[in-house]
Amino acid sequence: MAGMMAPMWLQETFDVPLVIQMTDDEKTLWKDLTVEQSMKMARENAKDIIAMGFDVGKTFIFANLDYMGRCPAFYQNIIRIQKCVTFNQVKGIFGFVDSDVIGKIGFPAAQAAPAFSTTFPFIFGKDKLPVLIPCAIDQDPYFRMTRDVAPRLGFPKPVLLHSSFFPALQGAKTKMSASDTNSAVFLTDTPKQIKNKINKHAFSGGRPTLEEHREFGGNTDIDVSYQLLRFFMYDDEELERIRISYSKGELLSGELKKIAVETLQSIVADHQRKRQDVTDAILEQFMTPRKLNYNFNGVDSKKY
Amino acid sequence: MAGMMAPMWLQETFDVPLVIQMTDDEKTLWKDLTVEQSMKMARENAKDIIAMGFDVGKTFIFANLDYMGRCPAFYQNIIRIQKCVTFNQVKGIFGFVDSDVIGKIGFPAAQAAPAFSTTFPFIFGKDKLPVLIPCAIDQDPYFRMTRDVAPRLGFPKPVLLHSSFFPALQGAKTKMSASDTNSAVFLTDTPKQIKNKINKHAFSGGRPTLEEHREFGGNTDIDVSYQLLRFFMYDDEELERIRISYSKGELLSGELKKIAVETLQSIVADHQRKRQDVTDAILEQFMTPRKLNYNFNGVDSKKY
Repeated sequence: MAGMMAPMWLQETFDVPLVIQMTDDEKTLWKDLTVEQSMKMARENAKDIIAMGFDVGKTFIFANLDYMGRCPAFYQNIIRIQKCVTFNQVKGIFGFVDSDVIGKIGFPAAQAAPAFSTTFPFIFGKDKLPVLIPCAIDQDPYFRMTRDVAPRLGFPKPVLLHSSFFPALQGAKTKMSASDTNSAVFLTDTPKQIKNKINKHAFSGGRPTLEEHREFGGNTDIDVSYQLLRFFMYDDEELERIRISYSKGELLSGELKKIAVETLQSIVADHQRKRQDVTDAILEQFMTPRKLNYNFNGVDSKKY
Repeated sequence: MAGMMAPMWLQETFDVPLVIQMTDDEKTLWKDLTVEQSMKMARENAKDIIAMGFDVGKTFIFANLDYMGRCPAFYQNIIRIQKCVTFNQVKGIFGFVDSDVIGKIGFPAAQAAPAFSTTFPFIFGKDKLPVLIPCAIDQDPYFRMTRDVAPRLGFPKPVLLHSSFFPALQGAKTKMSASDTNSAVFLTDTPKQIKNKINKHAFSGGRPTLEEHREFGGNTDIDVSYQLLRFFMYDDEELERIRISYSKGELLSGELKKIAVETLQSIVADHQRKRQDVTDAILEQFMTPRKLNYNFNGVDSKKY
């Protein structure tokens, strides 16, 4: 969710087309999920993304298990990539072993193909255009492989923009997990759940006693409530006031948590309202292969 | 070519739908051919197949690099299969090694998927129907793998019908090869080329001298001209007369070759005439995903 804010800002600021890939095939291959379950999940996730406010005129969202059957260029690029990469290479990059299923071994090419503009002929024609990929750091190996392959297929190397990982509520050294409901605030949480989660589970950078806190101040670097505000508080000046106040020991942990709870409650409730308005028809619009309208740096979409 | 005669006979005799897969992705992955070159070759090969006289109402021809982008069910079944098969398994079956490209490692699933009827929802709906796969013996490993996977995905095991390999002109122990133009009669050969190839290169089962041939007779088991007639002479009684006459030494090698030359010249010329009539529009008809019309064993295509 937080990871989608950079692409949206880039799209709004530079008037660029955006394609968003949902790797539902990966979900099926790695998790205990059927093809049908993964496809359904991808559509639900896409609705969450749409609710953030992406411009339908400039955004194409697709899921591999669906789009593969809608545009031959996708599979053709996958085969081109799969012809350039050996098992030895993916073994080195992803740590695959001989007992892995062959779907996993071939999958990196499905993740790589959308970095090549010809995978979307209805948007970019046959031009081999430069692309920017905002992604989380854990996706980096896929695109290192892609950067290796790109020049061999006549494409410019894709450029990466890494978002930092959001910490789990339990702190920077722990990992958010969909199966541990207390590890993160979810977009489906009720206001009460958000309050409980943050109050009970958000790792605090405050001092053990009130006296120590007043004397030495809290540590915002490790305080998860503060980290949440860094991502989700739009008012940078207010955020800075909070940081100074907490660091000085004026603002207490409970007070900081309260601000985080209220901020998250408001954002999640707002998202849930917008999410309700994303109908299947709107989803279909975003997921239909079609021309996009943009004019970036002299590249006018009318050209295609 | 000879391999397509069994499916045509089966289709005519039992009124069954027939799907023909062109593995142009395989060609790209294994040979020094681009995606574009392989796709073009697949279309040319499909025209040769159509020229044999398949019924457009009961036959769907598809090439992987094209059809993958026309029907999501194909890729979805590939992912289902790729989730059931490990690298260890394909290493054992196909002899893959770690330096093979990942496209080769994943490919067996693309060959296997059409053995599952749900890969063609526009023909078979969602029913998991039994299938019969007439193929050359060298394709057997793919379908052994497919038979292994089928029950795990709820499909009946596909049944195989193996065609025997056609010998190269140089004899049973040699191999036909597209790169050795003298190893086989091609459908594009002129009458003169056919005559020269058979006269110069067709391995003879005749005796070294005329006297020996008259005394001991020729050996039809190893005589390539006779083997050609076994495949291509429609008149079985005439073929049997030739076999007896050659075996007794009445018919000489040169005379047998002459019969083979004339038979092949006639069949190839006939094919070339029919091939000319296969327009791009007709090819498009065969390769368009659509309903087929058949009524086999109570399974009426109107059901779907």
